[in-house]
Amino acid sequence: MRQPTLSLTKDLTIRFSEVDSMGVVWHGAYALYLEDAREAFGLKYGLDYLGFVNRGFYVPMVDMHIRYRQPIVYGQAVTLRIDYVPTEAAKLIFDYTLTDTATGQVLCTAHTVQVFISKADRRLSWTSPDFYNAWKTKWGIHV
Amino acid sequence: MRQPTLSLTKDLTIRFSEVDSMGVVWHGAYALYLEDAREAFGLKYGLDYLGFVNRGFYVPMVDMHIRYRQPIVYGQAVTLRIDYVPTEAAKLIFDYTLTDTATGQVLCTAHTVQVFISKADRRLSWTSPDFYNAWKTKWGIHV
Amino acid sequence: MRQPTLSLTKDLTIRFSEVDSMGVVWHGAYALYLEDAREAFGLKYGLDYLGFVNRGFYVPMVDMHIRYRQPIVYGQAVTLRIDYVPTEAAKLIFDYTLTDTATGQVLCTAHTVQVFISKADRRLSWTSPDFYNAWKTKWGIHV
Amino acid sequence: MRQPTLSLTKDLTIRFSEVDSMGVVWHGAYALYLEDAREAFGLKYGLDYLGFVNRGFYVPMVDMHIRYRQPIVYGQAVTLRIDYVPTEAAKLIFDYTLTDTATGQVLCTAHTVQVFISKADRRLSWTSPDFYNAWKTKWGIHV
Repeated sequence: MRQPTLSLTKDLTIRFSEVDSMGVVWHGAYALYLEDAREAFGLKYGLDYLGFVNRGFYVPMVDMHIRYRQPIVYGQAVTLRIDYVPTEAAKLIFDYTLTDTATGQVLCTAHTVQVFISKADRRLSWTSPDFYNAWKTKWGIHV
Repeated sequence: MRQPTLSLTKDLTIRFSEVDSMGVVWHGAYALYLEDAREAFGLKYGLDYLGFVNRGFYVPMVDMHIRYRQPIVYGQAVTLRIDYVPTEAAKLIFDYTLTDTATGQVLCTAHTVQVFISKADRRLSWTSPDFYNAWKTKWGIHV
Repeated sequence: MRQPTLSLTKDLTIRFSEVDSMGVVWHGAYALYLEDAREAFGLKYGLDYLGFVNRGFYVPMVDMHIRYRQPIVYGQAVTLRIDYVPTEAAKLIFDYTLTDTATGQVLCTAHTVQVFISKADRRLSWTSPDFYNAWKTKWGIHV
Repeated sequence: MRQPTLSLTKDLTIRFSEVDSMGVVWHGAYALYLEDAREAFGLKYGLDYLGFVNRGFYVPMVDMHIRYRQPIVYGQAVTLRIDYVPTEAAKLIFDYTLTDTATGQVLCTAHTVQVFISKADRRLSWTSPDFYNAWKTKWGIHV
């Protein structure tokens, strides 16, 4: 069964402070961009950080994999696409693609995995919280 | 009455990520160094962040003033001195001096002011918490 | 003679990573917001960072003074206003006001001073570069 | 043929600013720790960043993979081990293991890959620079 595509594309603003002494964006700054994308995704699809917290969950990162293909320079127009990756597991999985806005050249791809932790006892949730299952159903995700 | 000098001097390590595209430490990174100095001071004199929290207080910054005199380059050996500034007020006040370790040249001076906020109700404490007064007495500070 | 008002107001996006363990924006993150404001100002008025560099100048920070009045929490809508401060000196001076977007309450004020450094020899420029004087004239600034 | 073990272990200092609103180290801050480890490794083994630059090379990150197993809390004593991974390719590859200093529990593992870029023309170096080959020979690395 085909899955729906839940994704979001946004233009990035490179901050001067994110550029390192080689004149390109410091590799560690990309984690900020991925977080920006997740946040924008969450606001668009109703899966935002404060929503998790209000329902008693944290969603810490357990895996982040970034492949840097081309450097980003200060002033470059850059577009970031985030794709939700459907999963049966009690996880939030996203793929990311950073492209040059003008040429479409891929600059970076990334992949992140987050889990659900109970705010109350800081324990890992092995099964998906009910609100997450409801969210999947609402958006037509089959897992 | 003369006040005691409560101070600490430490060598700084400049991180590559703190250097900007001009090849010098990004001005915003200095806030990190000041925080490192306050933390080291706190550990030396028994006035550390976790101690505040455990006694029911946050100590947010209300004023930070940094004067940059000379740039810091990557690989430069730099020394940071922090001085506690005695005050009657319910405040934590520090002065800072950043120098080139080899030449002693002053690279930067700074000044910060923090206040006490109750963790419980997030209200400003207009009078010094008892443990802070006791701390002052212990170190011979007259205010 | 009255000076023109060169200013810009923009909505800020608070990143999750900028929030500290007290649940409020870490004081050091404000330097990022001020930089964002300067950059937006530069793009609006033709005084941007790359323009400086292309004309052979860096504009390092020599003074940054931030007064924190109210904490900013994650998810809070915040507006930042930047005002250019006319000066005869070979300096770039800005005032900043951070307010709660909904209530208009002032959350923070700040002041920064930058100078001109020649890219070629890294020396301080004691007089305003010609392009800066031309820029002032263009915008009707009398100094 | 057995390879020599080139590694370094260092104690980490968690900065207050690196702790997020969940009270644990923000996942993006780990990139800083890995960089600290690479820098310390470089100083120990003569493979430091300024050495690269002085020989005409940048060593940008092309792959960073971090697996977060346990959160790090503020004040926790943490140890970071970095291991050089021998390779025939014109790459710098490192493995990292973050452990709780007291218990030895593994908190995080990571893997990074860097390549050589000519400073002059910003082109990728497909073969190892001579000084890198000489460095491998010096330390008995067979590739």
